[in-house]
Amino acid sequence: MLNHADEAEIRATVESWHEAIRASDVARVLALMDEDVVFLRAGAPPIHGRVAFGRDLRALLETHEIVSSGQVREVQVSGDLGYCWAELSVKVTPLEGGEPTVRAGPALSIFKRQANRIWLLVRDANMLAPDTAELELKVDNLERELMADGAGGD
Amino acid sequence: MLNHADEAEIRATVESWHEAIRASDVARVLALMDEDVVFLRAGAPPIHGRVAFGRDLRALLETHEIVSSGQVREVQVSGDLGYCWAELSVKVTPLEGGEPTVRAGPALSIFKRQANRIWLLVRDANMLAPDTAELELKVDNLERELMADGAGGD
Repeated sequence: MLNHADEAEIRATVESWHEAIRASDVARVLALMDEDVVFLRAGAPPIHGRVAFGRDLRALLETHEIVSSGQVREVQVSGDLGYCWAELSVKVTPLEGGEPTVRAGPALSIFKRQANRIWLLVRDANMLAPDTAELELKVDNLERELMADGAGGD
Repeated sequence: MLNHADEAEIRATVESWHEAIRASDVARVLALMDEDVVFLRAGAPPIHGRVAFGRDLRALLETHEIVSSGQVREVQVSGDLGYCWAELSVKVTPLEGGEPTVRAGPALSIFKRQANRIWLLVRDANMLAPDTAELELKVDNLERELMADGAGGD
């Protein structure tokens, strides 16, 4: 399980990812993943394939700035498979102004060594906490409004 | 990447997991994971280690019934590492009555072959959708209540 060169390559790939996202360089992001990559997340269907991911990312970058950063907690490699556990933070800000959305949490990413020895992302598990803050705020505001109206509920 | 015997062993381990959970057999669940296992999830800190996981599971089973099931979508193995992508559904019902909570979504689990050739769970990425249904229902009800009161907002 100890192959420091492979570990270092996977860490470099993860660093490239953040740099490319910050630079809005979609082509560079896509070069880090396998054609048949699958992105898994909570509350939404998987994204299947590099083409679909690129389409979604380009659409988001047309109207938003994305700043992604992270701390790699662990990389392990055996044979042609490796995994990386990282704690991430992703800030998405509307280009025309407005509040940014910040989501944070862990990701578990699986890399596969290709025939050309390059490690590419093949599966990604995204556990960035979904934004329930907005819903909670809405509940608070509605409850306050009801209270102010003196409308006694059940 | 094609090792059918290893794939079959990992699939059997996942099946054992669901059976053991359904049977509330904590010892059998714990035997499927490495001592230093890490469970990652959204909106909560990681659970580090078999002892901590066992403590949480025992506490939950004292007051709840858990029925877990799943569909394995993919198992891949290379060297001593394997991963399993499964779509899960977990139903948690209070023993003293009350509505069950059902959470569904993908999990990406990493297995490592031990010196004795047995595959154990070492890292688990849980993407079961958190229960926002309750908050959404609350918003709906409050909005309806406000409407009924004829209280015009801004």
